[in-house]
Amino acid sequence: MKGNIFYAQSGGVTPVINATAFGLIEQFFKNKKYFGKFYAGKNGILGALNEELIDISSEKKSELKLLKQTPGGAFGSCRLKLKDYIKSGRQFQRIYEVFKAHDIRYFFYNGGGDSQDTTNKISKFFKTKDYPITCIGLPKTIDNDLPITYCCPGYGSVAKYIATSTLEASLDVKSMSETSTKVFILEVMGRHAGWLAASAGIIKMNAGDPPHLILFPEIEFKQSDFLKKVKDAIDKYGYCVIVASEGIKSKNKFISDSGLKDSFGHAQLGGVAPVLSNIVTSKLNVKVHWAVSDYLQRSARHIASKIDVEQAYTLGRSGIEYAKKNISDVMLTIERIADKSKFKWKVSHAPLDKVANLEKMLPKNFIKSNGYEITKSCMSYITDLTQGEDYPTYAVGAPRYANLNCKTIKKKLKKFNL
Amino acid sequence: MKGNIFYAQSGGVTPVINATAFGLIEQFFKNKKYFGKFYAGKNGILGALNEELIDISSEKKSELKLLKQTPGGAFGSCRLKLKDYIKSGRQFQRIYEVFKAHDIRYFFYNGGGDSQDTTNKISKFFKTKDYPITCIGLPKTIDNDLPITYCCPGYGSVAKYIATSTLEASLDVKSMSETSTKVFILEVMGRHAGWLAASAGIIKMNAGDPPHLILFPEIEFKQSDFLKKVKDAIDKYGYCVIVASEGIKSKNKFISDSGLKDSFGHAQLGGVAPVLSNIVTSKLNVKVHWAVSDYLQRSARHIASKIDVEQAYTLGRSGIEYAKKNISDVMLTIERIADKSKFKWKVSHAPLDKVANLEKMLPKNFIKSNGYEITKSCMSYITDLTQGEDYPTYAVGAPRYANLNCKTIKKKLKKFNL
Repeated sequence: MKGNIFYAQSGGVTPVINATAFGLIEQFFKNKKYFGKFYAGKNGILGALNEELIDISSEKKSELKLLKQTPGGAFGSCRLKLKDYIKSGRQFQRIYEVFKAHDIRYFFYNGGGDSQDTTNKISKFFKTKDYPITCIGLPKTIDNDLPITYCCPGYGSVAKYIATSTLEASLDVKSMSETSTKVFILEVMGRHAGWLAASAGIIKMNAGDPPHLILFPEIEFKQSDFLKKVKDAIDKYGYCVIVASEGIKSKNKFISDSGLKDSFGHAQLGGVAPVLSNIVTSKLNVKVHWAVSDYLQRSARHIASKIDVEQAYTLGRSGIEYAKKNISDVMLTIERIADKSKFKWKVSHAPLDKVANLEKMLPKNFIKSNGYEITKSCMSYITDLTQGEDYPTYAVGAPRYANLNCKTIKKKLKKFNL
Repeated sequence: MKGNIFYAQSGGVTPVINATAFGLIEQFFKNKKYFGKFYAGKNGILGALNEELIDISSEKKSELKLLKQTPGGAFGSCRLKLKDYIKSGRQFQRIYEVFKAHDIRYFFYNGGGDSQDTTNKISKFFKTKDYPITCIGLPKTIDNDLPITYCCPGYGSVAKYIATSTLEASLDVKSMSETSTKVFILEVMGRHAGWLAASAGIIKMNAGDPPHLILFPEIEFKQSDFLKKVKDAIDKYGYCVIVASEGIKSKNKFISDSGLKDSFGHAQLGGVAPVLSNIVTSKLNVKVHWAVSDYLQRSARHIASKIDVEQAYTLGRSGIEYAKKNISDVMLTIERIADKSKFKWKVSHAPLDKVANLEKMLPKNFIKSNGYEITKSCMSYITDLTQGEDYPTYAVGAPRYANLNCKTIKKKLKKFNL
């Protein structure tokens, strides 16, 4: 009897997580003799808890193929921290029962740090049962903060979106600066690590080029120094482009929490860019424009990096090869192959124990000593990951993305209360 | 003696205004026997007032060629309303003197409604002098609000960006909606007319598809109805995607002015999305994400519409042909050619008198009676203009955009105080 596969997507989605799903699915179809069914969990691990399994063989092949070019999480994702499996094993027991009922022998979890922790715990829990299962983590996060792996699928594409958007908006504000807007602020994601903010830096070839200031969460925000630098840029270049990480702090307090209130007195949620805009406008008396790209950056598959798509896809394909060899309790990784002339990489793996719940921060030598720019090593690291374009096909002016039914199979067990 | 050309870019820039500049420049080089020099004004009409003329023959040909794929205004734009030329002709007199000093006999002004008004006034002023000059307006505006022309260069590309971004972010929020974010709000430009907000509607194929709500500036914002519709979408589809025009109003008051204040008590500038986000969060108690695309939408050349680029470029080329024939006091237009099977168009023209200072609003039959969706005629109009892709070339992960010197020629006149 050939065991079935359970695959699920977890945490914040990316422009290329579905490319990993497609790699896995495509390779599964090529290796059908080794496996039974391929189930995708509806909404991440919730699909296991709620026994909501999508049989991918019931999806149209032509739509599945579009997964490689589709952003978001095609099977649904979730933000759910499982309860401690030693103190309260209920949820783990349920996953075990669902997997047993559907003869799941391969568990793939596609996510970031928290999700790899879940994979690790599930793997550990199953070891207490007489139930062999292969547990494999597939990396995914735009935050690029997973340890051991050289980079994270998703990051390169979002970096490319941010670099391109910053360049384009800079040309706009530069055109307008003589008589109108002099400052443009782009807010990007990144609560703890400045990987995404840093990516805007790759467009700066010469002093004076935008972005003039990158605000990293790793560097304390000092208002007076910031304002001095903004004024300097305006005086020297006529305009100032700022890329700000959502996670910047002043005296351990998020800038975005600095007290914006609406007319009902409710604190405004999120938005470091409008706060910075207010500071610049009120102190320097210049016209400011600001943008918050939010989900746009995380889903911008239309401008994905070719190398990022390729890595995401290859990781999925490799997942099936690892499963065939029953290599378990690992997260697949990207390993850089030493080569001075060119960026080369291969798929490797790391024990789940070593990746769970660890964050890889931006290395100290990636930020210039002035605290507002990236170094040459950082630029070289990021440009390797933003190489090449991988355009989706289009229909009526917008990309043609996969349209799955996501119909779940008949349940065998009773309802479970989370 | 062959007369010289003066070309300038005016008002808010677009992803394709430089394609018009390139069409003009390319055709100028092919018709050198008819013309003298080609000067671009630095920062729009300011270039004339300040006698700051860029001789485009001093730019590298390879960089000029990149103009076709470069957003922003390569020669600088401006927001400057000239003084009334009857009451105070000082500025007009100065333009006349600068043009005479440099033997400018062709004036091309590339802009929207206000700018066409400027072209019209300059043309009228020159008629009071014994100085023959050909004045031609070249249309440009992402707002799509110029009269007579079937559409405005710039609009199709921004519409494509908005439709694509809405689709992509919708896939993201849909993935997350089971356990996290249920509502996504995208704020787009458009103070008076809903052309840009409407463009998000082209991705909606079936009831239930995003965007669930489009907020047009033409329709009064009613909070209770809005909240009911948001709740309905969440109940029915699990999530709700809203595209809001920056110009929406409630009781003649801009929603974006509805009282956000920072910790210093300063009113927050701009941002209808955070205001709507606060309303939804506080009244419906669901997690909301929001994005403000601001300049990103206006400069997103990386996802320009092919037909839009083609129209912008062709209008530039045609400018030279009109100049050769000395057809003056007109703005060039796009005219739709009657054809049921396919969108066909050609360049035509309209008297400047008839286009200056008029705004073309979204037709009433483009908005569904529920006030939140676009009609089939609207969808058909917009999809014609978002057809095809026209990708820029890339370098180190971001597009390779033109890099001009913009060196101005030696001045002949004294300094002028605006």
